[in-house]
Amino acid sequence: MAYIMNDYSKSIRPLILVTNDDGVRAPGLKAMVDAVKDLGEVIVVAPAQPQSGQSSALSVNKPLRINEHEDYNGVRVFSVTGTPVDCVKLGLHSIVSRKPDFLFSGINHGSNSGNAITYSGTMGAVIEGCTEGICSVGFSLLHHSLAADFSLSSELVKELATRVVTNPLTTHQCLNINIPAKVVPEGARVCRAAIGHWSEQYERYLDPQGKPFYWLTGRFINEEPNAIDTDEYWLSKNYISVVPVTPDQTLFSAIDPMSKVFNIS
Amino acid sequence: MAYIMNDYSKSIRPLILVTNDDGVRAPGLKAMVDAVKDLGEVIVVAPAQPQSGQSSALSVNKPLRINEHEDYNGVRVFSVTGTPVDCVKLGLHSIVSRKPDFLFSGINHGSNSGNAITYSGTMGAVIEGCTEGICSVGFSLLHHSLAADFSLSSELVKELATRVVTNPLTTHQCLNINIPAKVVPEGARVCRAAIGHWSEQYERYLDPQGKPFYWLTGRFINEEPNAIDTDEYWLSKNYISVVPVTPDQTLFSAIDPMSKVFNIS
Repeated sequence: MAYIMNDYSKSIRPLILVTNDDGVRAPGLKAMVDAVKDLGEVIVVAPAQPQSGQSSALSVNKPLRINEHEDYNGVRVFSVTGTPVDCVKLGLHSIVSRKPDFLFSGINHGSNSGNAITYSGTMGAVIEGCTEGICSVGFSLLHHSLAADFSLSSELVKELATRVVTNPLTTHQCLNINIPAKVVPEGARVCRAAIGHWSEQYERYLDPQGKPFYWLTGRFINEEPNAIDTDEYWLSKNYISVVPVTPDQTLFSAIDPMSKVFNIS
Repeated sequence: MAYIMNDYSKSIRPLILVTNDDGVRAPGLKAMVDAVKDLGEVIVVAPAQPQSGQSSALSVNKPLRINEHEDYNGVRVFSVTGTPVDCVKLGLHSIVSRKPDFLFSGINHGSNSGNAITYSGTMGAVIEGCTEGICSVGFSLLHHSLAADFSLSSELVKELATRVVTNPLTTHQCLNINIPAKVVPEGARVCRAAIGHWSEQYERYLDPQGKPFYWLTGRFINEEPNAIDTDEYWLSKNYISVVPVTPDQTLFSAIDPMSKVFNIS
């Protein structure tokens, strides 16, 4: 599968695959379509059910279904009964007629800054697209309210997506873009992800038989609260954060020092 | 939660958390315990059901249960009704009495080389442990047969785990170790993960009502078949591969060039 670069001289409109992790019925998905529908030919392949926190999980031990839904603003909409990665993989295999030029994932309902990329299904889809050689970008809105108005961020997403389409990313690079909830951000900054972890908190309940069960809660602990080059910093200053992401998690700087400890002849 | 460094001068044995993604009943889990039980105080917290391909997925929209199982060779064994990341998070919160000094995940039934780290539940647990400040290592055996004999690899895992315990990793570093299926590897090499992707193949079936469904298949496509510094290369030469892994997926080298395109004042 060679990457079909968009060649504007041939007047072929780029094919844009839109997906998300909040599911095919999420308002943010429609806002994503609205933001990019003028940039090319758009097709939606999104999870049938919400898939928040599904990371790069894929379905290995169960079958998948594809369903087509009502068009949205002239765009065909499909769902897959799996994870965001399943949507990308099965979408490429069985739904799209040619390899997409771009993949846009979102607009996610809530932040994916800091190390949320590790758990984010939104970014799982982006990393999958990138691994497949597609120029892929995830968008998240820092708004957890059910009443979040994605239309306000749609113009910002359109501006950034246009920059992506006119300046496609290099192979093996993708982007994690987070947008502050305020209507008018100060601007946008390319930056690194803040190092941190989630406070491991669980609510403990007792079922009617008196047996305990647990429900995840907790919040992100920024381990670098004083750093001024992280996504957390720029978001706190009401800027959009744009983090370049690599699917390759090799820590290259550790190869030489670790060789002294772990190489065995 | 401060990281309690093991201080041998105080004769406190390190606490070792063992987990996996093949589930609490997997033979590889017992082999993992056998390999590390002499290195400290061991406790097992593993998924109640197999979780292959679950990556760093976590359960946000469902409750979790903890169950205790029969001891294995004097080691207490717990299961969590969720993903490998759920095991680490809930294990730290509600099962272990103090923060573990080490986390060993595996021995996985099958390879996690190349970009399998993206999808691997084995490595999802490792990255979670690392993010929590625990020295964390994943082990996988390149053997997909149900009859895989993990006892043969247990000595190799013990040798490598001993090196980890006597040379704890720096914070924000973890390891992805793959072991060839042959009984006696040539040795071990610290190296990088091969860049590649999975061929997107699905078997297509028709259900009794004639409606199609799909089941994932496919194989890893090494995009660097001629590189001689990757895990795929060393495994092909019958060496154990040891890949240093970072949870932080920021592509630092892209921050400056991308700033010219995406920074907005």
